[in-house]
Amino acid sequence: MSELSSHHARHAFDRAMAMEPSGQNQYAAQASKDYWNMVGPYGGITAAQVAQAVLQHPQRLGDLVAVTVNYAGAVGERPYVIEAIPARTNRSTQHWIITLREQDAEGQWSTTTTATAMTALARDTWSDDEYVMPEVPPSSAVERYTTDFRVEWLNRYNIRPLLGGYPTEWDGASSPSLTRMWVSDEPPRPLDVPALTSLCDVFFPRIWLRRAKRVPVGTVSLTVYVHASAEQLAAVGTQPVLAQAQGQGFRDGFFDQTAQIWSPQGVLLATSHQLVYYKE
Amino acid sequence: MSELSSHHARHAFDRAMAMEPSGQNQYAAQASKDYWNMVGPYGGITAAQVAQAVLQHPQRLGDLVAVTVNYAGAVGERPYVIEAIPARTNRSTQHWIITLREQDAEGQWSTTTTATAMTALARDTWSDDEYVMPEVPPSSAVERYTTDFRVEWLNRYNIRPLLGGYPTEWDGASSPSLTRMWVSDEPPRPLDVPALTSLCDVFFPRIWLRRAKRVPVGTVSLTVYVHASAEQLAAVGTQPVLAQAQGQGFRDGFFDQTAQIWSPQGVLLATSHQLVYYKE
Repeated sequence: MSELSSHHARHAFDRAMAMEPSGQNQYAAQASKDYWNMVGPYGGITAAQVAQAVLQHPQRLGDLVAVTVNYAGAVGERPYVIEAIPARTNRSTQHWIITLREQDAEGQWSTTTTATAMTALARDTWSDDEYVMPEVPPSSAVERYTTDFRVEWLNRYNIRPLLGGYPTEWDGASSPSLTRMWVSDEPPRPLDVPALTSLCDVFFPRIWLRRAKRVPVGTVSLTVYVHASAEQLAAVGTQPVLAQAQGQGFRDGFFDQTAQIWSPQGVLLATSHQLVYYKE
Repeated sequence: MSELSSHHARHAFDRAMAMEPSGQNQYAAQASKDYWNMVGPYGGITAAQVAQAVLQHPQRLGDLVAVTVNYAGAVGERPYVIEAIPARTNRSTQHWIITLREQDAEGQWSTTTTATAMTALARDTWSDDEYVMPEVPPSSAVERYTTDFRVEWLNRYNIRPLLGGYPTEWDGASSPSLTRMWVSDEPPRPLDVPALTSLCDVFFPRIWLRRAKRVPVGTVSLTVYVHASAEQLAAVGTQPVLAQAQGQGFRDGFFDQTAQIWSPQGVLLATSHQLVYYKE
Protein backbone atom coordinates (compact mmCIF):
# COMPACT_ATOMS: atom_id res chain seq x y z
CA MET A 1 0.00 0.00 0.00
CA SER A 2 1.46 3.34 -0.99
CA GLU A 3 1.75 6.11 1.59
CA LEU A 4 -0.96 8.03 -0.20
CA SER A 5 -3.56 5.27 -0.16
CA SER A 6 -2.67 4.49 3.49
CA HIS A 7 -3.31 8.16 4.23
CA HIS A 8 -6.75 8.06 2.71
CA ALA A 9 -7.67 4.71 4.23
CA ARG A 10 -7.55 6.22 7.71
CA HIS A 11 -10.29 8.46 9.08
CA ALA A 12 -9.33 12.14 9.34
CA PHE A 13 -9.86 11.93 13.09
CA ASP A 14 -7.35 9.10 13.43
CA ARG A 15 -4.83 11.02 11.36
CA ALA A 16 -5.37 14.03 13.64
CA MET A 17 -4.59 11.86 16.67
CA ALA A 18 -1.22 10.67 15.32
CA MET A 19 1.77 11.32 17.63
CA GLU A 20 5.27 9.91 17.95
CA PRO A 21 7.36 9.46 21.13
CA SER A 22 10.07 12.13 21.23
CA GLY A 23 11.48 11.89 24.76
CA GLN A 24 10.36 11.00 28.27
CA ASN A 25 6.61 11.73 28.50
CA GLN A 26 6.92 13.65 25.23
CA TYR A 27 5.19 13.16 21.91
CA ALA A 28 5.69 14.94 18.60
CA ALA A 29 2.41 16.03 17.04
CA GLN A 30 0.89 18.59 14.72
CA ALA A 31 -2.45 20.34 14.29
CA SER A 32 -4.50 18.67 11.57
CA LYS A 33 -5.50 20.84 8.61
CA ASP A 34 -8.59 18.61 8.33
CA TYR A 35 -9.85 20.26 11.54
CA TRP A 36 -8.73 23.79 10.82
CA ASN A 37 -10.81 26.63 12.22
CA MET A 38 -10.39 30.28 11.25
CA VAL A 39 -6.88 30.99 12.56
CA GLY A 40 -5.81 27.65 14.04
CA PRO A 41 -7.13 24.19 14.80
CA TYR A 42 -10.67 23.57 16.13
CA GLY A 43 -10.40 23.56 19.93
CA GLY A 44 -12.07 20.17 20.22
CA ILE A 45 -9.35 18.47 18.21
CA THR A 46 -6.65 19.94 20.46
CA ALA A 47 -8.56 18.67 23.50
CA ALA A 48 -8.80 15.27 21.82
CA GLN A 49 -5.02 15.27 21.30
CA VAL A 50 -4.57 15.95 25.03
CA ALA A 51 -6.87 13.00 25.82
CA GLN A 52 -5.07 10.83 23.28
CA ALA A 53 -1.62 11.71 24.69
CA VAL A 54 -2.73 10.45 28.10
CA LEU A 55 -4.58 7.38 26.79
CA GLN A 56 -1.66 6.14 24.67
CA HIS A 57 0.94 6.77 27.43
CA PRO A 58 2.55 3.46 28.49
CA GLN A 59 2.10 4.28 32.20
CA ARG A 60 -1.59 5.17 31.93
CA LEU A 61 -3.88 3.61 34.56
CA GLY A 62 -7.56 3.15 33.71
CA ASP A 63 -9.98 5.22 31.63
CA LEU A 64 -10.19 8.98 31.17
CA VAL A 65 -12.80 10.49 33.50
CA ALA A 66 -11.89 14.20 33.54
CA VAL A 67 -9.86 16.52 31.36
CA THR A 68 -9.44 20.31 31.45
CA VAL A 69 -7.73 22.02 28.53
CA ASN A 70 -6.67 25.68 28.59
CA TYR A 71 -6.07 27.43 25.27
CA ALA A 72 -3.19 29.65 26.33
CA GLY A 73 -1.89 30.74 22.96
CA ALA A 74 -2.46 30.20 19.25
CA VAL A 75 -1.62 26.73 17.95
CA GLY A 76 -0.07 27.12 14.53
CA GLU A 77 0.85 24.89 11.61
CA ARG A 78 4.28 23.96 12.97
CA PRO A 79 4.99 20.64 14.74
CA TYR A 80 4.76 20.76 18.53
CA VAL A 81 5.50 18.65 21.57
CA ILE A 82 2.78 17.25 23.80
CA GLU A 83 4.19 16.48 27.23
CA ALA A 84 1.99 14.24 29.40
CA ILE A 85 3.31 13.78 32.93
CA PRO A 86 1.74 11.27 35.34
CA ALA A 87 1.96 13.61 38.34
CA ARG A 88 0.36 11.21 40.81
CA THR A 89 -0.54 7.55 40.57
CA ASN A 90 -2.80 6.05 43.21
CA ARG A 91 -4.16 2.52 43.53
CA SER A 92 -7.13 3.13 41.23
CA THR A 93 -6.74 6.75 40.00
CA GLN A 94 -4.05 8.75 38.24
CA HIS A 95 -3.57 12.50 37.73
CA TRP A 96 -1.86 14.04 34.71
CA ILE A 97 -0.36 17.42 33.81
CA ILE A 98 -0.22 18.03 30.06
CA THR A 99 1.29 20.88 28.05
CA LEU A 100 1.64 21.63 24.35
CA ARG A 101 4.81 23.52 23.47
CA GLU A 102 5.79 24.98 20.15
CA GLN A 103 9.18 26.19 18.92
CA ASP A 104 9.25 29.37 16.85
CA ALA A 105 11.54 30.13 13.90
CA GLU A 106 14.18 31.49 16.33
CA GLY A 107 14.15 28.25 18.34
CA GLN A 108 12.27 29.82 21.25
CA TRP A 109 9.76 27.49 23.00
CA SER A 110 6.37 28.70 24.11
CA THR A 111 3.46 26.94 25.83
CA THR A 112 0.31 27.05 23.71
CA THR A 113 -1.87 24.76 25.84
CA THR A 114 -2.00 23.71 29.48
CA ALA A 115 -4.14 20.83 30.71
CA THR A 116 -4.84 18.41 33.52
CA ALA A 117 -6.51 15.03 33.29
CA MET A 118 -7.57 12.19 35.53
CA THR A 119 -7.84 8.53 34.69
CA ALA A 120 -9.39 5.82 36.86
CA LEU A 121 -9.92 2.08 36.85
CA ALA A 122 -13.53 1.21 36.02
CA ARG A 123 -15.64 0.20 39.02
CA ASP A 124 -19.16 -1.15 38.96
CA THR A 125 -21.44 0.89 41.27
CA TRP A 126 -25.00 2.17 41.57
CA SER A 127 -25.50 4.47 38.59
CA ASP A 128 -28.18 6.93 37.54
CA ASP A 129 -28.63 9.78 35.04
CA GLU A 130 -30.29 12.78 36.66
CA TYR A 131 -30.14 14.96 33.52
CA VAL A 132 -32.37 12.85 31.30
CA MET A 133 -32.25 13.26 27.55
CA PRO A 134 -34.90 15.67 26.26
CA GLU A 135 -37.58 14.23 23.98
CA VAL A 136 -36.51 14.88 20.42
CA PRO A 137 -37.19 13.41 16.97
CA PRO A 138 -34.76 10.64 15.93
CA SER A 139 -31.72 11.77 13.96
CA SER A 140 -33.07 10.02 10.85
CA ALA A 141 -35.98 12.48 10.85
CA VAL A 142 -33.76 15.60 10.93
CA GLU A 143 -32.10 17.29 7.94
CA ARG A 144 -28.36 17.76 7.89
CA TYR A 145 -27.28 21.31 8.52
CA THR A 146 -25.45 23.33 5.92
CA THR A 147 -24.08 26.80 6.47
CA ASP A 148 -22.39 29.65 4.71
CA PHE A 149 -19.91 29.74 7.58
CA ARG A 150 -17.01 27.96 5.91
CA VAL A 151 -14.43 26.45 8.21
CA GLU A 152 -12.78 23.14 7.42
CA TRP A 153 -13.52 21.35 10.73
CA LEU A 154 -17.29 21.75 10.22
CA ASN A 155 -16.96 19.39 7.24
CA ARG A 156 -15.79 16.70 9.69
CA TYR A 157 -19.15 16.64 11.47
CA ASN A 158 -22.68 15.79 10.42
CA ILE A 159 -24.85 18.20 12.40
CA ARG A 160 -28.66 17.97 12.50
CA PRO A 161 -30.08 20.91 14.45
CA LEU A 162 -33.17 20.49 16.63
CA LEU A 163 -33.35 23.68 18.66
CA GLY A 164 -31.36 26.92 18.87
CA GLY A 165 -29.82 26.64 15.43
CA TYR A 166 -27.23 28.91 13.88
CA PRO A 167 -28.83 32.37 13.55
CA THR A 168 -30.13 33.22 10.10
CA GLU A 169 -30.63 36.91 10.89
CA TRP A 170 -27.93 38.89 12.68
CA ASP A 171 -30.36 41.48 13.98
CA GLY A 172 -29.20 41.71 17.59
CA ALA A 173 -32.39 40.13 18.97
CA SER A 174 -31.81 38.45 22.34
CA SER A 175 -32.81 34.79 22.66
CA PRO A 176 -32.02 31.82 24.93
CA SER A 177 -28.68 30.25 24.02
CA LEU A 178 -29.95 26.68 24.36
CA THR A 179 -28.98 24.49 21.40
CA ARG A 180 -29.83 20.85 20.77
CA MET A 181 -28.57 18.84 17.83
CA TRP A 182 -27.75 15.37 16.63
CA VAL A 183 -24.10 15.12 15.68
CA SER A 184 -21.71 12.47 14.39
CA ASP A 185 -18.30 12.24 12.79
CA GLU A 186 -18.38 12.64 9.00
CA PRO A 187 -17.77 10.10 7.61
CA PRO A 188 -19.12 7.98 10.48
CA ARG A 189 -16.53 6.57 12.90
CA PRO A 190 -17.08 4.43 16.02
CA LEU A 191 -17.19 6.75 19.05
CA ASP A 192 -14.25 6.64 21.47
CA VAL A 193 -13.05 8.89 24.30
CA PRO A 194 -10.92 11.28 22.21
CA ALA A 195 -13.77 11.69 19.68
CA LEU A 196 -16.26 12.27 22.51
CA THR A 197 -13.90 14.88 23.98
CA SER A 198 -13.73 16.64 20.63
CA LEU A 199 -17.53 16.56 20.27
CA CYS A 200 -17.90 18.53 23.51
CA ASP A 201 -16.60 21.62 21.68
CA VAL A 202 -18.80 21.23 18.58
CA PHE A 203 -21.29 24.00 19.41
CA PHE A 204 -21.10 27.38 17.72
CA PRO A 205 -20.47 30.19 20.24
CA ARG A 206 -23.43 30.68 22.60
CA ILE A 207 -23.02 34.45 22.45
CA TRP A 208 -23.78 34.47 18.71
CA LEU A 209 -27.14 32.87 19.49
CA ARG A 210 -27.78 34.94 22.61
CA ARG A 211 -27.11 38.25 20.85
CA ALA A 212 -27.77 37.35 17.21
CA LYS A 213 -24.46 39.08 16.65
CA ARG A 214 -21.23 37.53 15.37
CA VAL A 215 -18.57 38.97 17.68
CA PRO A 216 -14.97 37.63 17.76
CA VAL A 217 -14.68 34.69 20.20
CA GLY A 218 -12.23 32.02 21.34
CA THR A 219 -12.52 29.22 23.90
CA VAL A 220 -10.01 29.72 26.71
CA SER A 221 -10.81 26.70 28.91
CA LEU A 222 -12.72 23.46 28.30
CA THR A 223 -13.55 20.75 30.83
CA VAL A 224 -14.97 17.34 29.90
CA TYR A 225 -16.24 14.72 32.36
CA VAL A 226 -16.61 11.33 30.70
CA HIS A 227 -19.52 9.42 32.20
CA ALA A 228 -19.72 6.67 29.55
CA SER A 229 -18.21 3.28 30.31
CA ALA A 230 -16.22 1.53 27.57
CA GLU A 231 -19.24 -0.72 26.92
CA GLN A 232 -21.61 2.25 26.62
CA LEU A 233 -19.28 3.97 24.15
CA ALA A 234 -18.97 0.79 22.12
CA ALA A 235 -22.77 0.51 22.07
CA VAL A 236 -23.00 3.96 20.44
CA GLY A 237 -20.77 2.90 17.59
CA THR A 238 -21.26 5.22 14.63
CA GLN A 239 -24.74 6.45 15.65
CA PRO A 240 -25.25 10.21 16.05
CA VAL A 241 -25.31 11.51 19.62
CA LEU A 242 -27.53 14.21 21.07
CA ALA A 243 -25.54 17.33 22.00
CA GLN A 244 -26.97 20.14 24.12
CA ALA A 245 -25.36 23.39 25.26
CA GLN A 246 -26.38 26.60 26.98
CA GLY A 247 -24.61 29.72 28.20
CA GLN A 248 -24.98 30.74 31.85
CA GLY A 249 -23.23 34.06 32.30
CA PHE A 250 -21.80 36.61 29.84
CA ARG A 251 -19.65 39.22 31.56
CA ASP A 252 -16.78 41.57 30.79
CA GLY A 253 -15.33 39.60 27.91
CA PHE A 254 -15.97 36.01 28.99
CA PHE A 255 -18.98 33.71 28.91
CA ASP A 256 -19.39 30.13 30.03
CA GLN A 257 -21.24 27.21 28.51
CA THR A 258 -22.58 24.03 30.09
CA ALA A 259 -23.10 21.03 27.79
CA GLN A 260 -24.36 17.44 27.81
CA ILE A 261 -23.94 14.60 25.33
CA TRP A 262 -26.36 11.63 25.28
CA SER A 263 -26.39 8.41 23.30
CA PRO A 264 -29.48 7.93 21.09
CA GLN A 265 -30.67 5.47 23.75
CA GLY A 266 -30.56 8.28 26.35
CA VAL A 267 -27.35 7.38 28.19
CA LEU A 268 -25.53 10.51 29.45
CA LEU A 269 -22.12 10.02 27.85
CA ALA A 270 -20.35 13.23 28.88
CA THR A 271 -20.90 16.59 30.53
CA SER A 272 -18.78 19.58 29.64
CA HIS A 273 -18.18 23.20 30.49
CA GLN A 274 -16.19 25.89 28.83
CA LEU A 275 -15.18 29.50 29.24
CA VAL A 276 -15.04 31.59 26.10
CA TYR A 277 -13.40 34.97 25.41
CA TYR A 278 -15.47 37.47 23.45
CA LYS A 279 -14.88 40.96 22.15
CA GLU A 280 -17.31 43.90 22.39
CA MET B 1 -0.28 43.38 69.86
CA SER B 2 0.77 39.92 71.00
CA GLU B 3 0.96 37.08 68.50
CA LEU B 4 -2.07 35.48 70.13
CA SER B 5 -4.33 38.51 69.84
CA SER B 6 -3.06 39.09 66.30
CA HIS B 7 -4.02 35.49 65.54
CA HIS B 8 -7.54 35.99 66.83
CA ALA B 9 -7.97 39.40 65.22
CA ARG B 10 -7.69 37.82 61.77
CA HIS B 11 -10.53 35.91 60.17
CA ALA B 12 -10.03 32.13 60.00
CA PHE B 13 -10.24 32.39 56.23
CA ASP B 14 -7.38 34.88 56.07
CA ARG B 15 -5.28 32.69 58.34
CA ALA B 16 -6.00 29.74 56.01
CA MET B 17 -4.73 31.79 53.05
CA ALA B 18 -1.35 32.55 54.66
CA MET B 19 1.68 31.50 52.58
CA GLU B 20 5.35 32.46 52.53
CA PRO B 21 7.72 32.64 49.53
CA SER B 22 10.10 29.65 49.63
CA GLY B 23 11.77 29.70 46.22
CA GLN B 24 11.05 30.71 42.63
CA ASN B 25 7.27 30.45 42.11
CA GLN B 26 7.08 28.52 45.39
CA TYR B 27 5.16 29.23 48.56
CA ALA B 28 5.20 27.41 51.89
CA ALA B 29 1.70 26.76 53.20
CA GLN B 30 -0.30 24.43 55.38
CA ALA B 31 -3.85 23.12 55.56
CA SER B 32 -5.90 25.03 58.12
CA LYS B 33 -7.38 23.03 60.98
CA ASP B 34 -10.17 25.61 61.03
CA TYR B 35 -11.39 24.14 57.73
CA TRP B 36 -10.78 20.50 58.52
CA ASN B 37 -13.08 17.92 56.95
CA MET B 38 -13.18 14.26 57.93
CA VAL B 39 -9.69 13.11 56.90
CA GLY B 40 -8.12 16.28 55.50
CA PRO B 41 -8.93 19.88 54.67
CA TYR B 42 -12.25 20.92 53.08
CA GLY B 43 -11.70 20.86 49.31
CA GLY B 44 -12.92 24.44 48.91
CA ILE B 45 -10.16 25.79 51.13
CA THR B 46 -7.49 24.00 49.08
CA ALA B 47 -8.99 25.48 45.90
CA ALA B 48 -8.94 28.90 47.58
CA GLN B 49 -5.23 28.43 48.39
CA VAL B 50 -4.59 27.68 44.71
CA ALA B 51 -6.43 30.88 43.76
CA GLN B 52 -4.57 32.82 46.43
CA ALA B 53 -1.17 31.52 45.28
CA VAL B 54 -1.86 32.89 41.81
CA LEU B 55 -3.40 36.17 43.00
CA GLN B 56 -0.51 37.04 45.33
CA HIS B 57 2.16 36.09 42.78
CA PRO B 58 4.26 39.17 41.86
CA GLN B 59 4.01 38.39 38.12
CA ARG B 60 0.23 37.98 38.08
CA LEU B 61 -1.64 39.78 35.30
CA GLY B 62 -5.30 40.67 35.89
CA ASP B 63 -8.10 38.97 37.76
CA LEU B 64 -8.81 35.25 38.20
CA VAL B 65 -11.40 34.09 35.67
CA ALA B 66 -10.98 30.29 35.68
CA VAL B 67 -9.41 27.73 37.99
CA THR B 68 -9.47 23.92 37.91
CA VAL B 69 -8.21 22.02 40.95
CA ASN B 70 -7.61 18.26 40.95
CA TYR B 71 -7.48 16.48 44.29
CA ALA B 72 -4.83 13.91 43.44
CA GLY B 73 -3.92 12.68 46.91
CA ALA B 74 -4.72 13.30 50.57
CA VAL B 75 -3.54 16.65 51.93
CA GLY B 76 -2.32 16.09 55.46
CA GLU B 77 -1.36 18.21 58.46
CA ARG B 78 2.26 18.69 57.36
CA PRO B 79 3.50 21.88 55.67
CA TYR B 80 3.55 21.76 51.87
CA VAL B 81 4.77 23.75 48.91
CA ILE B 82 2.44 25.47 46.48
CA GLU B 83 4.17 26.04 43.17
CA ALA B 84 2.43 28.53 40.85
CA ILE B 85 4.07 28.81 37.43
CA PRO B 86 3.03 31.49 34.93
CA ALA B 87 3.19 29.13 31.93
CA ARG B 88 2.07 31.67 29.36
CA THR B 89 1.64 35.43 29.54
CA ASN B 90 -0.22 37.20 26.75
CA ARG B 91 -1.10 40.85 26.35
CA SER B 92 -4.28 40.62 28.42
CA THR B 93 -4.44 37.01 29.65
CA GLN B 94 -2.17 34.67 31.60
CA HIS B 95 -2.20 30.91 32.14
CA TRP B 96 -0.95 29.16 35.27
CA ILE B 97 0.05 25.64 36.26
CA ILE B 98 -0.16 25.04 40.00
CA THR B 99 0.82 22.04 42.11
CA LEU B 100 0.79 21.27 45.83
CA ARG B 101 3.63 18.99 46.93
CA GLU B 102 4.16 17.44 50.30
CA GLN B 103 7.27 15.84 51.78
CA ASP B 104 6.78 12.67 53.84
CA ALA B 105 8.71 11.65 56.96
CA GLU B 106 11.36 9.97 54.75
CA GLY B 107 11.88 13.17 52.73
CA GLN B 108 10.04 11.84 49.68
CA TRP B 109 8.01 14.45 47.79
CA SER B 110 4.57 13.67 46.39
CA THR B 111 2.05 15.75 44.47
CA THR B 112 -1.25 16.05 46.33
CA THR B 113 -2.95 18.57 44.06
CA THR B 114 -2.68 19.63 40.42
CA ALA B 115 -4.33 22.75 39.06
CA THR B 116 -4.52 25.22 36.21
CA ALA B 117 -5.76 28.78 36.33
CA MET B 118 -6.29 31.71 34.02
CA THR B 119 -6.16 35.40 34.86
CA ALA B 120 -7.20 38.26 32.60
CA LEU B 121 -7.26 42.05 32.57
CA ALA B 122 -10.76 43.38 33.14
CA ARG B 123 -12.52 44.59 29.99
CA ASP B 124 -15.84 46.38 29.79
CA THR B 125 -18.17 44.64 27.30
CA TRP B 126 -21.83 43.82 26.72
CA SER B 127 -22.83 41.60 29.66
CA ASP B 128 -25.86 39.51 30.48
CA ASP B 129 -26.85 36.75 32.92
CA GLU B 130 -28.74 33.96 31.16
CA TYR B 131 -29.11 31.80 34.29
CA VAL B 132 -31.23 34.16 36.36
CA MET B 133 -31.45 33.78 40.11
CA PRO B 134 -34.47 31.71 41.17
CA GLU B 135 -37.11 33.47 43.24
CA VAL B 136 -36.40 32.73 46.89
CA PRO B 137 -37.17 34.30 50.28
CA PRO B 138 -34.51 36.75 51.52
CA SER B 139 -31.78 35.27 53.70
CA SER B 140 -33.13 37.17 56.71
CA ALA B 141 -36.31 35.08 56.48
CA VAL B 142 -34.51 31.72 56.55
CA GLU B 143 -33.30 29.86 59.63
CA ARG B 144 -29.64 28.92 59.97
CA TYR B 145 -29.00 25.27 59.42
CA THR B 146 -27.62 23.05 62.14
CA THR B 147 -26.65 19.44 61.66
CA ASP B 148 -25.48 16.38 63.51
CA PHE B 149 -22.79 16.00 60.84
CA ARG B 150 -19.83 17.39 62.74
CA VAL B 151 -16.91 18.58 60.66
CA GLU B 152 -14.93 21.65 61.59
CA TRP B 153 -15.22 23.51 58.26
CA LEU B 154 -19.03 23.59 58.47
CA ASN B 155 -18.62 25.90 61.47
CA ARG B 156 -16.95 28.42 59.15
CA TYR B 157 -20.14 28.88 57.11
CA ASN B 158 -23.60 30.17 57.90
CA ILE B 159 -25.89 28.04 55.75
CA ARG B 160 -29.62 28.75 55.35
CA PRO B 161 -31.25 25.97 53.29
CA LEU B 162 -34.08 26.77 50.89
CA LEU B 163 -34.51 23.61 48.83
CA GLY B 164 -32.93 20.16 48.76
CA GLY B 165 -31.63 20.25 52.31
CA TYR B 166 -29.48 17.70 54.02
CA PRO B 167 -31.51 14.46 54.22
CA THR B 168 -33.16 13.77 57.55
CA GLU B 169 -34.05 10.18 56.71
CA TRP B 170 -31.49 7.88 55.11
CA ASP B 171 -34.13 5.60 53.63
CA GLY B 172 -32.71 5.19 50.14
CA ALA B 173 -35.57 7.16 48.52
CA SER B 174 -34.55 8.76 45.21
CA SER B 175 -35.05 12.50 44.83
CA PRO B 176 -33.74 15.35 42.65
CA SER B 177 -30.29 16.49 43.82
CA LEU B 178 -31.08 20.19 43.39
CA THR B 179 -30.07 22.27 46.42
CA ARG B 180 -30.53 25.99 47.00
CA MET B 181 -29.24 27.83 50.04
CA TRP B 182 -28.09 31.17 51.33
CA VAL B 183 -24.52 30.98 52.56
CA SER B 184 -21.94 33.32 54.03
CA ASP B 185 -18.65 33.12 55.87
CA GLU B 186 -19.07 32.78 59.63
CA PRO B 187 -18.26 35.22 61.11
CA PRO B 188 -19.11 37.47 58.14
CA ARG B 189 -16.19 38.54 55.93
CA PRO B 190 -16.21 40.70 52.76
CA LEU B 191 -16.38 38.40 49.75
CA ASP B 192 -13.29 38.13 47.56
CA VAL B 193 -12.17 35.74 44.81
CA PRO B 194 -10.51 33.12 47.05
CA ALA B 195 -13.57 33.08 49.35
CA LEU B 196 -15.89 32.79 46.34
CA THR B 197 -13.77 29.89 45.04
CA SER B 198 -14.08 28.16 48.39
CA LEU B 199 -17.86 28.70 48.45
CA CYS B 200 -18.22 26.78 45.18
CA ASP B 201 -17.46 23.57 47.09
CA VAL B 202 -19.82 24.24 50.03
CA PHE B 203 -22.56 21.79 48.98
CA PHE B 204 -22.92 18.43 50.68
CA PRO B 205 -22.46 15.54 48.20
CA ARG B 206 -25.27 15.42 45.61
CA ILE B 207 -25.34 11.63 45.78
CA TRP B 208 -26.38 11.72 49.45
CA LEU B 209 -29.45 13.71 48.42
CA ARG B 210 -30.11 11.73 45.24
CA ARG B 211 -29.98 8.37 47.03
CA ALA B 212 -30.80 9.35 50.61
CA LYS B 213 -27.78 7.24 51.42
CA ARG B 214 -24.50 8.38 52.94
CA VAL B 215 -21.85 6.61 50.85
CA PRO B 216 -18.13 7.48 51.04
CA VAL B 217 -17.28 10.34 48.66
CA GLY B 218 -14.45 12.70 47.72
CA THR B 219 -14.19 15.50 45.16
CA VAL B 220 -11.56 14.68 42.53
CA SER B 221 -11.81 17.76 40.31
CA LEU B 222 -13.33 21.22 40.77
CA THR B 223 -13.63 24.00 38.21
CA VAL B 224 -14.68 27.56 39.04
CA TYR B 225 -15.42 30.31 36.51
CA VAL B 226 -15.50 33.73 38.15
CA HIS B 227 -18.03 35.99 36.44
CA ALA B 228 -18.07 38.75 39.09
CA SER B 229 -16.11 41.91 38.48
CA ALA B 230 -14.13 43.41 41.35
CA GLU B 231 -16.88 46.01 41.78
CA GLN B 232 -19.61 43.39 41.89
CA LEU B 233 -17.72 41.38 44.52
CA ALA B 234 -17.17 44.52 46.58
CA ALA B 235 -20.90 45.27 46.34
CA VAL B 236 -21.69 41.89 47.93
CA GLY B 237 -19.56 42.68 50.95
CA THR B 238 -20.57 40.44 53.85
CA GLN B 239 -24.06 39.66 52.55
CA PRO B 240 -25.03 35.98 52.11
CA VAL B 241 -24.97 34.69 48.53
CA LEU B 242 -27.40 32.27 46.91
CA ALA B 243 -25.75 28.94 46.12
CA GLN B 244 -27.36 26.32 43.88
CA ALA B 245 -26.07 22.89 42.86
CA GLN B 246 -27.35 19.81 41.05
CA GLY B 247 -25.88 16.49 39.96
CA GLN B 248 -26.11 15.52 36.29
CA GLY B 249 -24.75 11.98 35.95
CA PHE B 250 -23.83 9.31 38.50
CA ARG B 251 -21.92 6.43 36.93
CA ASP B 252 -19.42 3.74 37.91
CA GLY B 253 -17.96 5.52 40.91
CA PHE B 254 -18.06 9.18 39.80
CA PHE B 255 -20.76 11.82 39.66
CA ASP B 256 -20.63 15.42 38.52
CA GLN B 257 -22.22 18.57 39.91
CA THR B 258 -23.03 21.87 38.26
CA ALA B 259 -23.35 24.92 40.52
CA GLN B 260 -24.15 28.64 40.42
CA ILE B 261 -23.56 31.43 42.94
CA TRP B 262 -25.60 34.67 42.82
CA SER B 263 -25.38 37.88 44.80
CA PRO B 264 -28.55 38.77 46.79
CA GLN B 265 -29.21 41.34 44.04
CA GLY B 266 -29.25 38.53 41.45
CA VAL B 267 -25.81 38.99 39.86
CA LEU B 268 -24.32 35.66 38.73
CA LEU B 269 -20.99 35.72 40.59
CA ALA B 270 -19.58 32.32 39.68
CA THR B 271 -20.42 29.04 37.99
CA SER B 272 -18.75 25.83 39.02
CA HIS B 273 -18.55 22.14 38.20
CA GLN B 274 -17.04 19.23 39.98
CA LEU B 275 -16.46 15.52 39.62
CA VAL B 276 -16.81 13.44 42.77
CA TYR B 277 -15.68 9.91 43.55
CA TYR B 278 -18.17 7.67 45.34
CA LYS B 279 -18.12 4.15 46.67
CA GLU B 280 -20.87 1.50 46.24
